[in-house]
Amino acid sequence: MAPEKRATEPPETICNGTALRKATRRVSQLYDAILAPCGLRSTQRSILIHIARAGMPTMGDLAAALVLDRSALAHNLKPLERDGFVAVAVDPADKRNRLVTLTAMGEAKLAESQTLWRQAQHRFETTFGTEQASVLRQSLAVIASAAFAKAFQDAGGTMTI
Amino acid sequence: MAPEKRATEPPETICNGTALRKATRRVSQLYDAILAPCGLRSTQRSILIHIARAGMPTMGDLAAALVLDRSALAHNLKPLERDGFVAVAVDPADKRNRLVTLTAMGEAKLAESQTLWRQAQHRFETTFGTEQASVLRQSLAVIASAAFAKAFQDAGGTMTI
Repeated sequence: MAPEKRATEPPETICNGTALRKATRRVSQLYDAILAPCGLRSTQRSILIHIARAGMPTMGDLAAALVLDRSALAHNLKPLERDGFVAVAVDPADKRNRLVTLTAMGEAKLAESQTLWRQAQHRFETTFGTEQASVLRQSLAVIASAAFAKAFQDAGGTMTI
Repeated sequence: MAPEKRATEPPETICNGTALRKATRRVSQLYDAILAPCGLRSTQRSILIHIARAGMPTMGDLAAALVLDRSALAHNLKPLERDGFVAVAVDPADKRNRLVTLTAMGEAKLAESQTLWRQAQHRFETTFGTEQASVLRQSLAVIASAAFAKAFQDAGGTMTI
């Protein structure tokens, strides 16, 4: 589906935050519906993936990777810990740190979700376009980066409004 | 900030849903920090804006415009109603409907938030590029649309995985 021309951009989509939020809600709804049979929501699957990739991240590193604050991460980890998919333990090297790991059950659940996730991705890319999706993800990765946050904060000095 | 080349796309950004969610979280954090002095979060401001534009939407229409389900909308409206910014009333024409309106206090709060929001938008566009932001919003509007959801659901028939 091609984006509409610039001239037709409706006023309610001018806010970059609102535009992002609405697209995220839509995609979460669509992906969640496909993931439903495995019992994970897409936000949960994303947390498990990040833990699996990082190995044994600290809560702080995991929060940063997910662009979540620590309290939101702790809130999101609770049901995953309760269901036995993740384990949170004190870091023996620094008792102020908590280390997060995927359990064997968590690994199995992630593997189970993989086929469903692929279906969701395939549908997204069939609908939106594979190349366009790649371009979009690159823009989104720039915005999600810590470097973007730094540049945004520094841009305060150039305000002319 | 220019997006990186495709070849450098890190594996954790392959999920379209995760990429959207992380960018949305980042932008919400950045906009919320700037909006903080007016006491509204960007999600709340977005709800007030949608009500103001629609006039007196039903809960269903407002939920659809915001790409929220009704229970999430009701949850988000509660603090806005408690603070006197919005009023929810039974539709005299159809008692199953609830109509949402902005109060005078809500209009004043929205006006108060406007200057702060402009600062946030200005910083975003200084950092990301005005033209790139417009192109991005158009992609996001396509994804957020009901037509996209329909096409995504219909794409199930073309699955080859």
